[in-house]
Amino acid sequence: MQRGVYTYKEITTQDNSWAASLKYLNENPPVFTDWLQQSWEQVLFTGCGSTYYLSLSAAAIWQTLTKIPARAIPASDIWLYPESIISPKKTLLITVSRSAETSETIFALDTFKKLSKQDTLAITCYGDRELTEKARHSITAVNAHEQSIAQTRSFSTMLLLAQYISGIAARNEQYLEKLTHIPESFQNLILEYEKVALRIAEDDNLDHFIFLGSGIYYGLASEAMLKMKEMSLSTSEAFHFLEFRHGPKSMVTSRTLIAALLDDKARDQQIKVLKEMKDLGATILAIDEDGKSVPADFIVSINSGIKSIARGPLMLPILQLLAYHRSMHKGLNPDSPRNLDAVVVL
Amino acid sequence: MQRGVYTYKEITTQDNSWAASLKYLNENPPVFTDWLQQSWEQVLFTGCGSTYYLSLSAAAIWQTLTKIPARAIPASDIWLYPESIISPKKTLLITVSRSAETSETIFALDTFKKLSKQDTLAITCYGDRELTEKARHSITAVNAHEQSIAQTRSFSTMLLLAQYISGIAARNEQYLEKLTHIPESFQNLILEYEKVALRIAEDDNLDHFIFLGSGIYYGLASEAMLKMKEMSLSTSEAFHFLEFRHGPKSMVTSRTLIAALLDDKARDQQIKVLKEMKDLGATILAIDEDGKSVPADFIVSINSGIKSIARGPLMLPILQLLAYHRSMHKGLNPDSPRNLDAVVVL
Repeated sequence: MQRGVYTYKEITTQDNSWAASLKYLNENPPVFTDWLQQSWEQVLFTGCGSTYYLSLSAAAIWQTLTKIPARAIPASDIWLYPESIISPKKTLLITVSRSAETSETIFALDTFKKLSKQDTLAITCYGDRELTEKARHSITAVNAHEQSIAQTRSFSTMLLLAQYISGIAARNEQYLEKLTHIPESFQNLILEYEKVALRIAEDDNLDHFIFLGSGIYYGLASEAMLKMKEMSLSTSEAFHFLEFRHGPKSMVTSRTLIAALLDDKARDQQIKVLKEMKDLGATILAIDEDGKSVPADFIVSINSGIKSIARGPLMLPILQLLAYHRSMHKGLNPDSPRNLDAVVVL
Repeated sequence: MQRGVYTYKEITTQDNSWAASLKYLNENPPVFTDWLQQSWEQVLFTGCGSTYYLSLSAAAIWQTLTKIPARAIPASDIWLYPESIISPKKTLLITVSRSAETSETIFALDTFKKLSKQDTLAITCYGDRELTEKARHSITAVNAHEQSIAQTRSFSTMLLLAQYISGIAARNEQYLEKLTHIPESFQNLILEYEKVALRIAEDDNLDHFIFLGSGIYYGLASEAMLKMKEMSLSTSEAFHFLEFRHGPKSMVTSRTLIAALLDDKARDQQIKVLKEMKDLGATILAIDEDGKSVPADFIVSINSGIKSIARGPLMLPILQLLAYHRSMHKGLNPDSPRNLDAVVVL
């Protein structure tokens, strides 16, 4: 098999998984809708690696839509330090796992069920495995299975599912309707901007990749950081946008690429950060809804007409392609990252 | 002025700041003790950069001791995305700032006061500045001012204050008593292990520094990561211990140093991670209470007789010295990191 074939296909067809999952949900509304809409006092999202980063984004979206406190915790921390996380409050635990077999996520669910009388939901790509059988309810992505080790279409599709159940919990029909339009913008985005990813990936002057995102996009910046590591073995880091000024910016040189995930709410402040980093010599790649007045060397305009809180799945594909093309440029195989297995089983 | 003089002095005398702060608190118990012990529904800790990392540790300690849900958020996120964080629940916001003048922390406090009828406390090194005047109550570190830009003794002393108020809130006299013994272990630790920091710092075969910590030590691992960047401009990253297996370990080579902050509760699982990383070729520096059976190339034994949840301030000094000596070895000036100012004012 030629290197990278699976990853490339999985990245560039993820809109199919999105559309199929949304179609399925539209035709088969979750049986747990009433259960999900009860008045939880708090919601915990958990996962490992990519799905922990997904949880960071999902928790911020959940709280914004429902007003119910929501936070994300790595599964290993729930398992090993439940006393610092689980409280007597009426809590919903939402576990996210591509394989539905990751040990720590299952241990986190077990720990939570043992120490709390509260309830659990699983978001996965496989509906009939240990995690989904142990959770009270589950929701499964359609057509999102992957042969690659690094998660790409499974990530964005499970993110869409997390957004979907947040919309249900908030009884926000308008939000759910917006989600149905997300697949429409995908193909144009790839057609128009894959060349940007390729150009940056093949620039050997750049060797330090920083991903900046805040609020609901911090988790997505972290996921983009992980893709760069896994596929291309490049130095990559993620920071909350304005946090980057508080120390990490000391590392900026002319070899730094800053990939900025701009959002509607904090855009003015984020643009100030980008100006400062450009003055320090960084190359800037900005991913924005319309790209207007952004001080960047490369701009990806999403043009979705969808607000930040819904358009998350569209922020990632160009960054996934950046990792993919960097991997190919370095002669690596993005399908099979060094040192890694598809599922971590302890 | 010779390079590094301030930083070295601030690192190696931090036990003075700890002892002075504890002595002051012992002789002048906080006037807000009753107020602090009320039944908050949740507690938010916030800061920027180092003090955000401090908040991560402090929130986990607070919840473990008091059973009240506590979490840490970067100040910029509270300021810019309050709807994803602030809820109608009876909340205490604890802001941490060395200067008590950091813009985002003040904006976070202002936002919280505007949107929530709840209450605020400031932890700082200066008692009469904007942040302390705006907060309902405040607590100030003694002898912890710094001339260096990178926080070292101010960090560990404010961490001790955060631990102290957590003990008060939990009415946990035993915990407060344990804290009074923390300064005793410091000088021995430096005397015995500074040479370890020096030896690693001068090893040019190592150029990728990973800091692993979980639960209450994730924030401390993040702070150690930031010191390496700020002082020595070295590639450094922090991860939750077991999270490192879920992707980031793809980056491990024979040039990787893994600095491991072991804790009492998850030690067995953490040792398994270290074994795996050693097999992948990493050099391991373990910081542990007694160092028994730890598969590491270098072991720092704290020998404090104090549990993980209290001994946090003792985990950092050797890692601060590692950053300091790496900086000196590279011919840099740890007192004045590149691109940075002491306070970020927007």
